[in-house]
Amino acid sequence: MSDVSDWWRTAIIDMEPGRIALRGHPIEDLIGNVSFAEMIWLMVRGDRPDDAQARLFEAALVAAVDHGPQAPSIAAARMAVTCGLPLNNAMASAVNMLGDVHGGAGEQAVELYHHVENAGGEIAAALDSWIAQRGKIVPGFGHRFHTPVDPRAPRLMALVAEARDAGACEGRYSEIGTGIEAELARRKGRPIPMNIDGATAVIYAELGFAPPLARGLFCLSRSVGILAHAWEQTQQGGRNKGPTPPKYRWTYDPD
Amino acid sequence: MSDVSDWWRTAIIDMEPGRIALRGHPIEDLIGNVSFAEMIWLMVRGDRPDDAQARLFEAALVAAVDHGPQAPSIAAARMAVTCGLPLNNAMASAVNMLGDVHGGAGEQAVELYHHVENAGGEIAAALDSWIAQRGKIVPGFGHRFHTPVDPRAPRLMALVAEARDAGACEGRYSEIGTGIEAELARRKGRPIPMNIDGATAVIYAELGFAPPLARGLFCLSRSVGILAHAWEQTQQGGRNKGPTPPKYRWTYDPD
Amino acid sequence: MSDVSDWWRTAIIDMEPGRIALRGHPIEDLIGNVSFAEMIWLMVRGDRPDDAQARLFEAALVAAVDHGPQAPSIAAARMAVTCGLPLNNAMASAVNMLGDVHGGAGEQAVELYHHVENAGGEIAAALDSWIAQRGKIVPGFGHRFHTPVDPRAPRLMALVAEARDAGACEGRYSEIGTGIEAELARRKGRPIPMNIDGATAVIYAELGFAPPLARGLFCLSRSVGILAHAWEQTQQGGRNKGPTPPKYRWTYDPD
Amino acid sequence: MSDVSDWWRTAIIDMEPGRIALRGHPIEDLIGNVSFAEMIWLMVRGDRPDDAQARLFEAALVAAVDHGPQAPSIAAARMAVTCGLPLNNAMASAVNMLGDVHGGAGEQAVELYHHVENAGGEIAAALDSWIAQRGKIVPGFGHRFHTPVDPRAPRLMALVAEARDAGACEGRYSEIGTGIEAELARRKGRPIPMNIDGATAVIYAELGFAPPLARGLFCLSRSVGILAHAWEQTQQGGRNKGPTPPKYRWTYDPD
Repeated sequence: MSDVSDWWRTAIIDMEPGRIALRGHPIEDLIGNVSFAEMIWLMVRGDRPDDAQARLFEAALVAAVDHGPQAPSIAAARMAVTCGLPLNNAMASAVNMLGDVHGGAGEQAVELYHHVENAGGEIAAALDSWIAQRGKIVPGFGHRFHTPVDPRAPRLMALVAEARDAGACEGRYSEIGTGIEAELARRKGRPIPMNIDGATAVIYAELGFAPPLARGLFCLSRSVGILAHAWEQTQQGGRNKGPTPPKYRWTYDPD
Repeated sequence: MSDVSDWWRTAIIDMEPGRIALRGHPIEDLIGNVSFAEMIWLMVRGDRPDDAQARLFEAALVAAVDHGPQAPSIAAARMAVTCGLPLNNAMASAVNMLGDVHGGAGEQAVELYHHVENAGGEIAAALDSWIAQRGKIVPGFGHRFHTPVDPRAPRLMALVAEARDAGACEGRYSEIGTGIEAELARRKGRPIPMNIDGATAVIYAELGFAPPLARGLFCLSRSVGILAHAWEQTQQGGRNKGPTPPKYRWTYDPD
Repeated sequence: MSDVSDWWRTAIIDMEPGRIALRGHPIEDLIGNVSFAEMIWLMVRGDRPDDAQARLFEAALVAAVDHGPQAPSIAAARMAVTCGLPLNNAMASAVNMLGDVHGGAGEQAVELYHHVENAGGEIAAALDSWIAQRGKIVPGFGHRFHTPVDPRAPRLMALVAEARDAGACEGRYSEIGTGIEAELARRKGRPIPMNIDGATAVIYAELGFAPPLARGLFCLSRSVGILAHAWEQTQQGGRNKGPTPPKYRWTYDPD
Repeated sequence: MSDVSDWWRTAIIDMEPGRIALRGHPIEDLIGNVSFAEMIWLMVRGDRPDDAQARLFEAALVAAVDHGPQAPSIAAARMAVTCGLPLNNAMASAVNMLGDVHGGAGEQAVELYHHVENAGGEIAAALDSWIAQRGKIVPGFGHRFHTPVDPRAPRLMALVAEARDAGACEGRYSEIGTGIEAELARRKGRPIPMNIDGATAVIYAELGFAPPLARGLFCLSRSVGILAHAWEQTQQGGRNKGPTPPKYRWTYDPD
């Protein structure tokens, strides 16, 4: 019997009939007393944020909820609904899409910031070694749609500056992020501004989240937009809606 | 060209290069100014909650984040990680599990409350007609593990009472829920107390969310526990962990 | 220990170190000796098909492998690849889409044939009672794209006729299917021909598969097209490809 | 309009109303004339296998259909069913699990064989450089459960030998595989025999499939076992079955 319970173990939740404790706190003490954002922090990390940390964390979660139905994840949620899926399956179909290319950019940007930090903070050299190892797409900078600038990034960076001034974070990764932005502009001869992934990565790095959690927290955040779009599609109806109307034909391209 | 853009439409998000508006609000006005819970409400419904509504809504989201790894969803997230999946795919595998039986109880409980309301509020008769149509498992009441009572439900119901006294909701569905609880106790000769699904369904019904959103919001809430467990498993390591250790053998039961 | 192994049980597979038996057959006796289609039948049902049954079964599996990237499942697989997902996650994203509306039509068509059979075979009356209970979309008949006729259906029905003449099936459901087709034509004043779902449903019903397996087997069959498209997209590359090019804008439709 | 159709393109399928061609073949010519395994080959590659190739390919597909419910994928399918999911969602939940660690071993084994080949076939040195780059777990060899030997591997390797003798393949990767097996035994002082992933990788490499397709084809193959188990669980019933019975408690391990 010990074998079975030892096979899996957790420090997140402890239960007995009639009792649920999350990270050591009885659930009834949490309900009504912590915000949803604070609860996310507590569950993922085990401790609780102070008010300034919670405010910055919440801003990152709010910023990434949606980027419209051109994003494959949102499109997938809406298509799923027209295939007859209930909301849980539609949401899963969409979150599944948040892979290395779509939802992973924030994770990669935190890794990039750590890479620069570990390289001693010499941005140009650190960027060279990153590109040599990871390729020329620098995660967190530039946007194929938002020119000149992704409106979410400057707003988030202003909140990071406020938080730093209030002592809630050190501002080290904020400096690294703006340093990379400047270096990229210098190299390209035009601005390659920080985007949502680069800015939320600054926040998650400042707050001490490990890189994979930048992806995980993005999944939580984007799940909000996914739910909203899946529900809107549910109300609109439609059956088996593919990406384009049936009369459009994908290009057939014989080998 | 009009055909393609007419094939899909949305009132949630409007974008131009450099501009993102969610439900008509520029994203930079929302970031730092609304809580994550308020953002969820805004995205799903289009309007904004008042403070008392937001507080009650947040309590429901906090309450359902986790019920431990015996729940198939949480187990799936942890197994997925040991199969080598990153967090987005692990979370999707878990949310997908929140089907009619697992994540759908809250939705069904809202439907039950609406059914009782539409039947004129005569609980015993309405319960009979519900059972005749939907079967004998009454959603939102009783718990196979938590005896005598699911500790989340009374705490949530106390917050509903506070909200009603503050004028944030009418208390109609709270009355229906406690009425069903009393009727079930009378029929069974022992308490069949309201559980987490029954209590969050009271809140979502009081706040005017349609039944499928009780499932959708549960998915958002449980995604928090899913992420926490997936991340804990990532840190623990393990490869291809099935439900039981390899030396345990499932019962082979020849036809 | 008995509790744990009793919690789950199976008659499909029995294993010891060094030994694997599927449905009672050592795996090494099956490899090289049964076709993939026969293996599917054996695993799902426990017995083995005769040659004529296997041939008919295989035809149904071959017929449904793909219907192009306008189908939401195939589109989802391709989008998933451009989000950076490996083939297993891309395939899962796609199979998940095969819900009640997309992949469930075959299941519903088998249910319809059983309904007609149980109603005594009087087609017009049985169709009326089906529509009263299940709605006006008759599963398995008509096609929004293939006019005048879905080319897969007549070919499959010809194979059913051959199989019936060879004694491999009774032809009862084939008769019911063509009877429904005739009745629908009479009611509408124009042909509403049997489609792929209606024709594979005839085959699965003739071969004695329960209705949900018509959906399950469709998922296996369509997984082939899903894999082919996911792989083609992998080779083409592309990043974060949504349903339409970024310059197309979904219609924004303020409330 | 050209933009939209150019955004996606395919060489797999071409359709007009009333006409479906797969890889250039009208669907009605394929139905009843090609086996399901041949159809898989045609769809994925565009050409058709000869009889000896088809036989070897089919053996690999048959061999990997199931490895019991201790495998996370099969367990996930069964848990999904008890959460109320229909077969498509249960299958998707399971296939999603076939990640780098679970379903990716065959892909990695093909990569290993190519690595050895590209290194000039000097096994010991090539194995050293592989381990230096990819870590000490050598994909395709050894099994934590099947001792002394995974019964599927020798049977598959015997079929490869037959196919080579018949001229259907060259036997180059078969030699590499057995060479690695011998080198591992020499290093460890005990047999580390080829397992199912190593043996199917030999076959897929001999037949010219790219490494990612070893994973994709494994997903198709294992989908058969997934469907069988999901359907068996559907027939058994059960609600919200987690990995262990509710009375077993996962070890709580406070930080």
